Amino acid sequence: MDIATLRATHPDHWMKAAALRALAMDAVQAANSGHPGLPMGMADVVTVLFEKHLKFDASAPHWPDRDRFILSAGHGSMLIYGLLHLCGDAQITLDQIKAFRQWGALTAGHPENFLVDAIETTTGPLGQGIATGVGMAIAEQSLQARFGKKIVDHRTWVLAGDGCLMEGISQEAIGLAGMQQLSNLIVLWDNNDITIDGRVSVSDRTDQRARFAASGWTVLHCDGHDPADIDRALTAAKAASGPVMVDCKTIIGFGAPTKADSYQAHGSPLGDKEIAATREVYGWPHAPFEIPAEIAAAWKAIGSRGAADRAEWQERLNALSANKRDEFLRQMAGGAPKKLAAAIRAFKKAQSAAGPKVATRKASEMVLGAVNDAVPETIGGSADLTGSNLTKTADLGVFGPGNRKGRYVHYGIREHGMAAAMNGLWLHGGVRPYGGTFFCFTDYARGAMRLSALMGAPVVYVMTHDSIGLGEDGPTHQPVEHLAICRATPNTWTFRPADIIETAEAWELALSTMHTPSVLALSRQNLPTLRTAHSNQNLSAKGAYVLAEATGKRQAILMASGSEVEIAMNARAALEAEGIGTRVVSVPCMELFAAQDEAYRRKVLPAGPVRVAVEAAVRMPWDRFLLGERGKEAKAGFVGMQGFGASAPAERLYAEFGITAEAVAAKVKALL
Amino acid sequence: MDIATLRATHPDHWMKAAALRALAMDAVQAANSGHPGLPMGMADVVTVLFEKHLKFDASAPHWPDRDRFILSAGHGSMLIYGLLHLCGDAQITLDQIKAFRQWGALTAGHPENFLVDAIETTTGPLGQGIATGVGMAIAEQSLQARFGKKIVDHRTWVLAGDGCLMEGISQEAIGLAGMQQLSNLIVLWDNNDITIDGRVSVSDRTDQRARFAASGWTVLHCDGHDPADIDRALTAAKAASGPVMVDCKTIIGFGAPTKADSYQAHGSPLGDKEIAATREVYGWPHAPFEIPAEIAAAWKAIGSRGAADRAEWQERLNALSANKRDEFLRQMAGGAPKKLAAAIRAFKKAQSAAGPKVATRKASEMVLGAVNDAVPETIGGSADLTGSNLTKTADLGVFGPGNRKGRYVHYGIREHGMAAAMNGLWLHGGVRPYGGTFFCFTDYARGAMRLSALMGAPVVYVMTHDSIGLGEDGPTHQPVEHLAICRATPNTWTFRPADIIETAEAWELALSTMHTPSVLALSRQNLPTLRTAHSNQNLSAKGAYVLAEATGKRQAILMASGSEVEIAMNARAALEAEGIGTRVVSVPCMELFAAQDEAYRRKVLPAGPVRVAVEAAVRMPWDRFLLGERGKEAKAGFVGMQGFGASAPAERLYAEFGITAEAVAAKVKALL
Repeated sequence: MDIATLRATHPDHWMKAAALRALAMDAVQAANSGHPGLPMGMADVVTVLFEKHLKFDASAPHWPDRDRFILSAGHGSMLIYGLLHLCGDAQITLDQIKAFRQWGALTAGHPENFLVDAIETTTGPLGQGIATGVGMAIAEQSLQARFGKKIVDHRTWVLAGDGCLMEGISQEAIGLAGMQQLSNLIVLWDNNDITIDGRVSVSDRTDQRARFAASGWTVLHCDGHDPADIDRALTAAKAASGPVMVDCKTIIGFGAPTKADSYQAHGSPLGDKEIAATREVYGWPHAPFEIPAEIAAAWKAIGSRGAADRAEWQERLNALSANKRDEFLRQMAGGAPKKLAAAIRAFKKAQSAAGPKVATRKASEMVLGAVNDAVPETIGGSADLTGSNLTKTADLGVFGPGNRKGRYVHYGIREHGMAAAMNGLWLHGGVRPYGGTFFCFTDYARGAMRLSALMGAPVVYVMTHDSIGLGEDGPTHQPVEHLAICRATPNTWTFRPADIIETAEAWELALSTMHTPSVLALSRQNLPTLRTAHSNQNLSAKGAYVLAEATGKRQAILMASGSEVEIAMNARAALEAEGIGTRVVSVPCMELFAAQDEAYRRKVLPAGPVRVAVEAAVRMPWDRFLLGERGKEAKAGFVGMQGFGASAPAERLYAEFGITAEAVAAKVKALL
Repeated sequence: MDIATLRATHPDHWMKAAALRALAMDAVQAANSGHPGLPMGMADVVTVLFEKHLKFDASAPHWPDRDRFILSAGHGSMLIYGLLHLCGDAQITLDQIKAFRQWGALTAGHPENFLVDAIETTTGPLGQGIATGVGMAIAEQSLQARFGKKIVDHRTWVLAGDGCLMEGISQEAIGLAGMQQLSNLIVLWDNNDITIDGRVSVSDRTDQRARFAASGWTVLHCDGHDPADIDRALTAAKAASGPVMVDCKTIIGFGAPTKADSYQAHGSPLGDKEIAATREVYGWPHAPFEIPAEIAAAWKAIGSRGAADRAEWQERLNALSANKRDEFLRQMAGGAPKKLAAAIRAFKKAQSAAGPKVATRKASEMVLGAVNDAVPETIGGSADLTGSNLTKTADLGVFGPGNRKGRYVHYGIREHGMAAAMNGLWLHGGVRPYGGTFFCFTDYARGAMRLSALMGAPVVYVMTHDSIGLGEDGPTHQPVEHLAICRATPNTWTFRPADIIETAEAWELALSTMHTPSVLALSRQNLPTLRTAHSNQNLSAKGAYVLAEATGKRQAILMASGSEVEIAMNARAALEAEGIGTRVVSVPCMELFAAQDEAYRRKVLPAGPVRVAVEAAVRMPWDRFLLGERGKEAKAGFVGMQGFGASAPAERLYAEFGITAEAVAAKVKALL
């Protein structure tokens, strides 16, 4: 629909949408930075969505039963800021709009969920929003199955652009949602035919409707500038079965006389002259950031449209038994249940006595047996490596179209989609997600793992086969740099437990934090129980601790993580036999150790003794705990990997790459 | 087709295919590790392919005009080893087959192109093969346009499994190939309906045929166990226009009485009993690894089937003018042309005199102006950020269905697909690929970037907007850990040039190596020319060097890279003004510096002075060049990022995060 017709036939709608468009133009211009094109293109669609379909109450952004709205095309952030401001969001004041993209403002360049309550998820890296939305839709279905439709019954709406749909992660999301038949998921495709490099045809000729349909989605379409047609399509989308994609045909920078329908409207301010001309086209004579009272009032009414719904929901919640209500609220709040700590303690006590020799991936499965019983809100899964990651415990049940009570998701061969879905599961609330793949394939999931860290989403990555100990599959499957990668990423706990006890402690920490994702790097190969003396204390909480003290004069300190702690212990035995007093420090989590006070760090790693670190990976993360590289002055060494691994049985690889107790002992003696 | 019918109707075919199947079963059993199911399932398809369609000569695995065959489902490696052995490949002897997955063998768990000449690309991480194949097909079309169809006229065949097609990277490959209408690309889908977690329906319901068709592919299908039907489909595939997907319906572990058509045939040895029973079904009474002479001879004939083709091709090559032939062979060999060095020298001389203040991304564009003229085999591109990455120079032309001479690829919003395609461009030969995105989005491309490193493919990643200097887009777009990630990855050169001169030097090094991929981390913001005294020498080749010496007694050494070298220089000026002699070391490439001999490293970083490193990123990679963390003894410090960035103008971010000359000078004084 062209602007003249739209203005003439839908004047009320037009003015509300024009307010969104003007705010976007003006804020981007004031910041001299940003993306006006998407808000101007999608204003009609979201105006209809917010006015007639989205279940929300602007005064209660955390209302559990609200619809989730995700701006997957996060560069169009002024669209969501404009919506929130106009609807009366308490945080997004006009001053915030005016401070768009400035230091300290809530109105960051891309929407950040850790800044604004009403922003469901951080977006910007393309495709993340749609995949995160799949996780939210799964969470909703899981909670609905557990707490009933009266308490949980809402949708996830995702606004996705051409960029989102070209990213590979979108296919993983489409495939997963299609298989799961998530009727509560609706993707609004901003089909504007423009990317940064020009028309979409410069790089793609995919028939997106056919592509979604191929994975079992219902596909609808509308003229993204015709309110009646949009309303028709959104109404149909809510009634359809399975996930729905609505192809919204739009014009980027709608109404800008020289820049609409062009990449020039995408990512730069339009310029004062173009903005003035666009105001003419819009019939919007108001000054920048000025919203006429009548239009402001109309939007405020939209913002409070859901208040009655919410009150009714609150009554239904109040009508639940106290136990059930408390449990719902506890799960939505995200804290671990009290009995988790007791379950871990009991597990540790039993296992430190039993002292099994098991791979830490197996140990993890054993811990999960206890955890999944104590924490009913866990939802586990694997990217098609269930039998290798050992992430599925008995009685979890498989989540699927026929069983929404199942607590295990077969994510398929979709590491990136899985990671983003786990973010969505957490962000929705009510779920503690964990999921597995081979540690090496963090490479495929990095984009979403970084967002876990940035958003502080405490999801748990169960990353097995964490070194050359994987053996015969060879270097493509053997992580060597991945511990460094995870440790270099801010706000990420990288656990590499040495035995079943540290594995239990890592799980406890991972499930207790509210703000930090955890990576559990777990061995394929069996490892002895090193912590055979039970302690109620979680020793891993300090990141590193003295596992074995030197007898006699302390001449050497060996540091190691995971499977190499056993090697360090064997090296210690050899050195002690030669009269060289040797301490072994187990380092299950460098980040937690670095966060301890200096007194503790110096107690664990006192100055004086030779230091040797052992890890079947690159040296980089250990340098901070070793001395510098100053030639002869060096009193520290590293035993680990110099480059990529190789294909052979694990024991042979350790021998060939020289990661052995003998090599560690020899290194110590050379340094003494 | 069932086995009884197949054996009865196609006995010759059957025995050839059975040889492949038996080798796979036996080698996996001997190794007690591996994947027999895929070779047993796809043996019929590849037997027909190699016997009747694939253009190759087993005695000349590097024949430039051969068809490329890629086993994207790399876990089925015994299929390719069996094929190579039977065809008479010089490297894959029977002893190698028997040493499958053992230390030192060429027959690694997954196919490694750096071990075996006839293996076109390393596979194993799923989906990489199909995306790498797109690059090979682009390379072929580019070379054909430049050297003519008589010299370059071949296809790329990709065997992909369900796992490959679920990975997001496959969609990026499908979209790119579809848009490019690469008629020389044929994907054979091993449609066996099995993944590790069970039936495909456990995690997917995608209609793959419809999905490929949606992106402009021709879709065919065949009974993957009917030689005539396979032959029909492959014949049609060669005649079709645009890329072709052939849906080959197969049974995993074909013929294994209890494990066929089940995940149990996928990734474990079948066991002696099942193997014996399968031999019965196959009518294959021969001992493990024994191939009857008649069958061996039939396969040898297949292996030499292309010899005549190759001889004719050699004649056509010989008939070219000497200049053209030499140029073709030079480009296929991969070495940079001699005039590159002269072009870089001239560029450096002019720019050190001119001393422009430009962003290093702009400097890179200026260098590329000279490079693309001197090196006709470059193919540039960007993942839809051409105007930001500044990767497209004048006169390159855009590669597309209508212009195969174009040297610029609009990869679309497909970072992972782009990286894998660049690997394919290099591996095909005749092309020096480079491609750009924002540095932060290495996260999306990690899977393929790691393979560049593992394979030693010297592709060039042009990664712009390399720090918080990106400004307003905020933390999702601001790399802080990515320098650490690239530097932690073995066999990767991470360049972060400080000015236009170092940018030119980085490009020269990146284009001159034959074995190492390069990441060029480039600034968004303008930087002054620091190297105003011209030197013919490439100072960046040593990784780090003294940019400015202390006047008087050397009390401090400042180390920095990229945009922070200017900050270090300003700090030096302030310190020198206070009488504190300060050296500045520019560190454009840590990996190259670490590779220098100790004498050079000690010359650049002598013991004694206080050391402070400055980089707008996490500290981890610098620790090796600083002293350890020993409390009061520390004589070293770091000025950089502690966590994620924020959304604001760049200058404000540098000030707020304390990455300033003042902060550096203060740190030095605190340490003195």
